[in-house]
Amino acid sequence: MPLFRKAVIFGVGLVGGSFALALRRANAVGEVVGFGRSAATLEQARQLGLVDRIGDDAACEVRDADLILLATPVAQMADILARIEPHLGPDTLITDGGSTKCDVVAAARRQLGNRISQFIPAHPIAGAEQSGPAAARSDLYQGKKVVLTPLAENSAVAVLRVRTAWEACGAVVSELTPEQHDEVFAAVSHLPHLLAFTLVHDLAQRDNSDLLLSFAASGFRDFTRIAASSPEMWRDISLANRDALLREIEQFAAELYKLHQALEQRDAAKIEEIFSLARKVRSNWTPP
Amino acid sequence: MPLFRKAVIFGVGLVGGSFALALRRANAVGEVVGFGRSAATLEQARQLGLVDRIGDDAACEVRDADLILLATPVAQMADILARIEPHLGPDTLITDGGSTKCDVVAAARRQLGNRISQFIPAHPIAGAEQSGPAAARSDLYQGKKVVLTPLAENSAVAVLRVRTAWEACGAVVSELTPEQHDEVFAAVSHLPHLLAFTLVHDLAQRDNSDLLLSFAASGFRDFTRIAASSPEMWRDISLANRDALLREIEQFAAELYKLHQALEQRDAAKIEEIFSLARKVRSNWTPP
Repeated sequence: MPLFRKAVIFGVGLVGGSFALALRRANAVGEVVGFGRSAATLEQARQLGLVDRIGDDAACEVRDADLILLATPVAQMADILARIEPHLGPDTLITDGGSTKCDVVAAARRQLGNRISQFIPAHPIAGAEQSGPAAARSDLYQGKKVVLTPLAENSAVAVLRVRTAWEACGAVVSELTPEQHDEVFAAVSHLPHLLAFTLVHDLAQRDNSDLLLSFAASGFRDFTRIAASSPEMWRDISLANRDALLREIEQFAAELYKLHQALEQRDAAKIEEIFSLARKVRSNWTPP
Repeated sequence: MPLFRKAVIFGVGLVGGSFALALRRANAVGEVVGFGRSAATLEQARQLGLVDRIGDDAACEVRDADLILLATPVAQMADILARIEPHLGPDTLITDGGSTKCDVVAAARRQLGNRISQFIPAHPIAGAEQSGPAAARSDLYQGKKVVLTPLAENSAVAVLRVRTAWEACGAVVSELTPEQHDEVFAAVSHLPHLLAFTLVHDLAQRDNSDLLLSFAASGFRDFTRIAASSPEMWRDISLANRDALLREIEQFAAELYKLHQALEQRDAAKIEEIFSLARKVRSNWTPP
């Protein structure tokens, strides 16, 4: 008897498809039903074995589902929640794969009402350059972090069940509040993306951008890798996490100003102090 | 008959040692004599076969040298030039491996006087995390860019001879003026290093830095890789290229402010426009 008899997945791309494959590999799911906006993508997911069936009527499919994963762009989640809310079974649990949490929680509260207790938000930290069903892999979450941001309304049992689902996928699960989550990721993920986009945009606008880029080397390559990320996705993340991100930009600009001052004053000791602390912390940090 | 009968290398670490190995592999050098501040490092270089002999008297050794490479930190180059200037043979050419050029050229003009014509500055773009003689490799420069910044005083023959030396090492040689060089590298190398140092320093100072870093993922890893670079070296580069770097920081801060404004005003179109141009340019760029 698998952990979950039936899972329904909205969005059968990298995140949703890998979740389905991982649950199946762990023998943790009986049947997987997929929903999505593109018939071609759904059919591809079915042929790749990510889902057993393509869903037809969401109202009908969610009634007896144990687990629902929202793996669509965050902007589409409110509509899906509104559509399924009246039909949720009493024991159906919902989780998601969104990169921001306060906005998803706010939308879920609006759409789910009293059933908000059935929604346990999650953010799997498994960045990948590719997307779509063909990019899905059963080991995408193996050893990767998944952050749950449980709500006051969630029962301990519900949180544990969703945690178990992500752990069955191989993930290392930790918990933060939605607010903590968004502050942490504004600092360590969203800000670096914005800085990389800004640097490349800065150079791209110049008359001599071709000359500049012809001399860019491996430092630039790694620093700007994330500037090749999806503009639409990062526009949405930026807006969704706007307040924390504005604070991060301001804090960074203040730090950059301090370095500018030290350099203007030729304060070698201060410059070395800044670089040395950064180097020490970066060298002691263990990359994932 | 090799291209150069005798080469003298000041600083027998990664840059100097690799230059020696590469010239020898190309059968482009007869004898290599090494100088340095640490007897232990010199002895290691000799045992590794980077140099044939450890130099004793620089005055004597440079007299009949065809080629001298300054591969020490930039700050030590002026002293070395002052020491060897009176003893340079009329056909001895000097090149260097410094990451900044205007400051090296200024020091060389001061120390070499009329013999400045014998100095053809170079910047090999072959970043490596390691340093020291043990890190030297005969293929370090293979396919890598080397920028020459010839001076008005250099003869075409002298420039060609130094170009040939770097090409014998496998490098792809291009030419810029010293001023162009420093502006280009302020933008594509020095600024990204300062931004990476600043971000890590910013996070490192916070009370919750351990929590923050525990959720940092692959985007952060690549973005901050260069924040583990040598604080002393980057302090010196920053000060050496101070004026261009101050301008770059100001320009970047202005760009960051534009993005901050767009985010504050929830200007989704403007945000997407910035990210899209950055993504297009970064995706079309071919990393080295």
